[in-house]
Amino acid sequence: MIIGVSRAAEPASPRIASAATIRTLVSPASIAVIGASDDKTKFGGRVMHYLLKHGFAGRLLPINPNRETVLGLPAYKSVSAAPEPPDVAIIAVPAGALLAQVEDCAAAGVGGCIVITGKLGEADAAGAALEASLVRAAAKTGMRLVGPNCLGIINPIDGVALTSSLAMEVDRLTPGTVGIVSQSGALMGTLVSRALDYGTGFSRCISVGNQADLELCDFLEYLVDDDATQVICLYVEGLKTPDRFFAAARRAWAAAKPILVVKAGRTEEGARNAQSHTASLAGSYKGFLTACDAAGVVVMNDPISMVFAADALARLPRPSAPGLGIAAIASSGGSTANFADQLAGTRLRLATMSPETRFAIEAWAPAAHVHISMDTGSFAKGTSAEGIQAVIRAFMADPAIGAIVYPMTTSPRMAEYAALLPALSREGGKPILFTMLAGQVGDDARAQLKDMNFPYFDRVADVLTTLQAMDDYAQTRVKGLAPPATRPPGAGPAPQAPFVQGTLTETETKRLVAAYGIPVTREAPARNAEAAVQAAEAIGYPVVVKGVARAISHKSDAGLVQVGLPDAAALRAASMQIFAILDRMAPGTHEGIVVQEMVHGVAELIVGTKYDPDYGPMVLVGFGGILVEVLQDVQLAVAPVSPQSALAMLQRLKFWPALQGVRGKPSADVAAAVDALCRLSWLAADMGPRLLELDINPLILRAAGQGAIAADGRATVSGDGSA
Amino acid sequence: MIIGVSRAAEPASPRIASAATIRTLVSPASIAVIGASDDKTKFGGRVMHYLLKHGFAGRLLPINPNRETVLGLPAYKSVSAAPEPPDVAIIAVPAGALLAQVEDCAAAGVGGCIVITGKLGEADAAGAALEASLVRAAAKTGMRLVGPNCLGIINPIDGVALTSSLAMEVDRLTPGTVGIVSQSGALMGTLVSRALDYGTGFSRCISVGNQADLELCDFLEYLVDDDATQVICLYVEGLKTPDRFFAAARRAWAAAKPILVVKAGRTEEGARNAQSHTASLAGSYKGFLTACDAAGVVVMNDPISMVFAADALARLPRPSAPGLGIAAIASSGGSTANFADQLAGTRLRLATMSPETRFAIEAWAPAAHVHISMDTGSFAKGTSAEGIQAVIRAFMADPAIGAIVYPMTTSPRMAEYAALLPALSREGGKPILFTMLAGQVGDDARAQLKDMNFPYFDRVADVLTTLQAMDDYAQTRVKGLAPPATRPPGAGPAPQAPFVQGTLTETETKRLVAAYGIPVTREAPARNAEAAVQAAEAIGYPVVVKGVARAISHKSDAGLVQVGLPDAAALRAASMQIFAILDRMAPGTHEGIVVQEMVHGVAELIVGTKYDPDYGPMVLVGFGGILVEVLQDVQLAVAPVSPQSALAMLQRLKFWPALQGVRGKPSADVAAAVDALCRLSWLAADMGPRLLELDINPLILRAAGQGAIAADGRATVSGDGSA
Repeated sequence: MIIGVSRAAEPASPRIASAATIRTLVSPASIAVIGASDDKTKFGGRVMHYLLKHGFAGRLLPINPNRETVLGLPAYKSVSAAPEPPDVAIIAVPAGALLAQVEDCAAAGVGGCIVITGKLGEADAAGAALEASLVRAAAKTGMRLVGPNCLGIINPIDGVALTSSLAMEVDRLTPGTVGIVSQSGALMGTLVSRALDYGTGFSRCISVGNQADLELCDFLEYLVDDDATQVICLYVEGLKTPDRFFAAARRAWAAAKPILVVKAGRTEEGARNAQSHTASLAGSYKGFLTACDAAGVVVMNDPISMVFAADALARLPRPSAPGLGIAAIASSGGSTANFADQLAGTRLRLATMSPETRFAIEAWAPAAHVHISMDTGSFAKGTSAEGIQAVIRAFMADPAIGAIVYPMTTSPRMAEYAALLPALSREGGKPILFTMLAGQVGDDARAQLKDMNFPYFDRVADVLTTLQAMDDYAQTRVKGLAPPATRPPGAGPAPQAPFVQGTLTETETKRLVAAYGIPVTREAPARNAEAAVQAAEAIGYPVVVKGVARAISHKSDAGLVQVGLPDAAALRAASMQIFAILDRMAPGTHEGIVVQEMVHGVAELIVGTKYDPDYGPMVLVGFGGILVEVLQDVQLAVAPVSPQSALAMLQRLKFWPALQGVRGKPSADVAAAVDALCRLSWLAADMGPRLLELDINPLILRAAGQGAIAADGRATVSGDGSA
Repeated sequence: MIIGVSRAAEPASPRIASAATIRTLVSPASIAVIGASDDKTKFGGRVMHYLLKHGFAGRLLPINPNRETVLGLPAYKSVSAAPEPPDVAIIAVPAGALLAQVEDCAAAGVGGCIVITGKLGEADAAGAALEASLVRAAAKTGMRLVGPNCLGIINPIDGVALTSSLAMEVDRLTPGTVGIVSQSGALMGTLVSRALDYGTGFSRCISVGNQADLELCDFLEYLVDDDATQVICLYVEGLKTPDRFFAAARRAWAAAKPILVVKAGRTEEGARNAQSHTASLAGSYKGFLTACDAAGVVVMNDPISMVFAADALARLPRPSAPGLGIAAIASSGGSTANFADQLAGTRLRLATMSPETRFAIEAWAPAAHVHISMDTGSFAKGTSAEGIQAVIRAFMADPAIGAIVYPMTTSPRMAEYAALLPALSREGGKPILFTMLAGQVGDDARAQLKDMNFPYFDRVADVLTTLQAMDDYAQTRVKGLAPPATRPPGAGPAPQAPFVQGTLTETETKRLVAAYGIPVTREAPARNAEAAVQAAEAIGYPVVVKGVARAISHKSDAGLVQVGLPDAAALRAASMQIFAILDRMAPGTHEGIVVQEMVHGVAELIVGTKYDPDYGPMVLVGFGGILVEVLQDVQLAVAPVSPQSALAMLQRLKFWPALQGVRGKPSADVAAAVDALCRLSWLAADMGPRLLELDINPLILRAAGQGAIAADGRATVSGDGSA
């Protein structure tokens, strides 16, 4: 469960793996390599070679019916012919030979089998059938499967390079605290290879492929509990068990281990690719983002940027709070000016330095040349180590500054100046993001920092995505996990009466939201024009009259709405006109007309609910009318929401300033909008999959202090009470 | 002049350099190095060393009063003591010794002097005075200056490394067709150093520093005419002569040489940095963007991205048209899915492949696995050179595809597959953007392409900025240079009557726009309530009444506007109320009231003019009311504009769809809006600096075919007819 509210149970993974099982797979004491070979151009040759090269210290069992020895080790005809059942067998034989090998492993008592072979479930129906038979064969003896269509496991902490990935051609695996779980093996190898160049250290990197048996969440849960792992990167194509995923994410948040994730399916093409690739259904990307927001997960777009950001979170001090400003320093006026300008495309900003900071820097540079993006070339005595240190220490002492960026250009003493930064960052407790803009002439500085186990960057763009991810994570630390939402008084319970299947009328929808304490327009149904006039007496003119027919959901377009009717004569005429339309468009099935009070306000919102089959009940808000249609300016959150979260949703709308009174207009009743959003979110949470979606459009906001009122609405409910 | 319309003349650069002068500076036959030394830690040591290392073939004259020889060459006590006056002297002595050296060079008959020394004009008043005296000293004999505060000239075509930049530590300078002019020397060295790693070849790279004498435009004009240069990169802090800049840009466009530019001052902090750095005033960034749009210049944000994009424009075929879709291919489902997803953040899009393309690819992969972002791992027989070639050839043949991206992950045969691409790109005539996502394990593929003189990338983000720049440039080829605008009938001339200095009233503003054929509301002034009633008889009820006072420009806020007055009684009451306010707020100075027809429409725009002191007359359009205030959704163009350009401005507004009828609303009269925009642009062009700014707000658009009408307006004119 995501948020403590019951919803349709996900089918659980058939067998949740124990922590000990996963630990053994990731750090095995013995490994059988099926198809082991001396030949590095072959799969089994590369695996053997990489395991030996990167220092596997356990027992290695080459399996090859045609060889006595492989790379000097005694080889065995089959896994079952080996002197002991290994903790792990790794296998990449063609599909035709796969089942027999897996059966042999299972029979021999292997703990887990890593299946590299592809073209199974992701390829076609025959592949899917074979994949299912592998799982059944393994389950017979309790053996677990990783993959198929995966690339294995890289565990630099324990020297286990259990993969055929060419990323292992690197000289040395650097152990560290960044863990990865990836549905794409090639992408994982690529990320490891790229990041090792920068000195990033990894704990455990697991490629899960098609997840036929063990899945991403099995390894995610393991990493959350793994002391060696402090930051987690995930490449996800589709989640098999969203509830399990977000439960693990919440535990990671509680353990202060950032989770960064890139997920396929932001676009339809991406989703189609993912399905071709690992047979994963991508699900709703917007729903995923929303659920991540509630669980403290940071979502990114570029996998390489993700690993750079993870490295910074692992090896640098983290900003103490979200939203802090940035300072910069370099010996080039060009790079400092451009760095300042490049912030314009982001939601980051330069800090405003304190008078003390300015004063400290004025000891080094004339006042007119002291900037928050500081060019050391303007130092009165020129760039110097002392000056650089003094400016950075001043930045470190300034509470408005959260991070310092050093975009270095070609200049004398590059490595010497770079070497100052690790101590300054440690001492000041703030991240310094060093960026070597030059090419190979800057390699000495890069090597210097790599030797000092300090991250560096090559591009301002990477610094910016890293700072944004660091800020996103700082944001999750401050706002905590959403909710602690508490039910507002009088919100619910949902009416128990059986709902109509499908679309609710405006009147039925309003009854539902009114049961949660959301004010709705005063209104009364009428079967004819005279009844309408009688109803209007009680409501008071001017009034609105609407025709009601379940089949017609766009009432205005059909001519079924007339507003601002000033008196009985106008109402009578309008009612007759609407009845004529109803009789023509929905003869015998319409439900007559409804007379409503005419409400004026200073702004109109759309608020609503949506039930996501993967990620559960959600609540949404946007501006009404043309704004929502053209700008798609809508915010979504997992339901229920707390008032703080509801306010944050409103504040993230582009048109948020419009609620606060623009051009002398009065400000709108934001508190009433927040209250309506919270109440609606409880309706969504309570009804779960029974309420597929509901829109109040418009929710009319009166001036501050005067409330909000639902003026129209519609909803879709599932007929049988289940999704 | 930017657009053929006269405006206040910029102070011309005192002496425009002849093409021959610049050519000699960039390709000198003889060079004097003042302060020449054997010691590479010294400025004069590095310059000597780099000139020799990179093969300077002319005469090299070391100047050093304390040495007989430098690096084996005879040294001279001063430039005037050398056996011949060199084409160029390069100098970096401290400020105190600078004037004497420059005077000595001038006296000796040196052609041009490159002054590296900084802390002159950019530092303080004393530095500025010294800088001015250098220029005077040089001018005495016709010697030209580059700098001060620059880093010199790198000319790989002729083997001239006339700089102390550490970028010259690179083994070899690759000649090529990319030229650079930069106000930041360190940034230029950095860009050269970075790009050389990727195999980019350069023609001439010139650092202009403070531009005390020769300026960016002198070198830009040279590059436009230089046969060796085919693509031009500019790093600009502030333009000294915008007219000259854009005239050169138009010539470059005509010669089909793309100009890419990064300009400081996108943010205020960037502008302040630029001023500290080279004493450049950044000017209005928005004005700069607008003028670049009219002159076919592509503006970018990151200097490194700029050089990558320039390299792609130099070494790859260019897309044949703007707006074409993209195709991708790689051996990883992860990287192809993620590539598709990363397009979502840009204005690029994947192509929709033709049935023929799909058919061709289905020979290699099952139909369900054929995607426009194609994973070769799903080939029935696995990834192969033949399959890669077949898919790329199919993409090449598809007219909907403008460019192909290959985001490669770690996999077997990386270099072998990369090596296929140069021939495929050449043969198909479309760019292939190869991206090596892996780290050093991918270096063989990088080296392979570098050897084949084919560009490669390391990051998808760089591919995306490059593709966007290529598309921007393709866009300029199609739309041509703005305008050919032709004056609409009845637009102007501007009234000759002397204008009031400062703010114009609504009535005066409307007279001005009416003279250009823009419809304005029917209206009449009135000195009292009875006169208003009389005026309304002719106009027809309902009417609007407004109070007129030059000093009160926000009439609504002051209570000086009442709308929808249905009859004489209402008008009389409103008029008296407004007169009371006028008498209180502007006693004795107000101009009475004006009665106007009441106009209804389906949309409201703000249209206006703005005179930019650097970039000349401009016209703007945005949505009225809250939309413009919250979203800042405004488009600007250099005036005058053609109808095509005016329509394009409207289409670029985020709310453009709203003009076309949303939710059953009628569509607005876009043609009338286009016409008003064109006419207004001619008013701006004709009046030049006399019209500082003018807003029509709102321009009310009626339904399509029913016209547009200016309902309110204000303007500011300069008193003496000059800016």
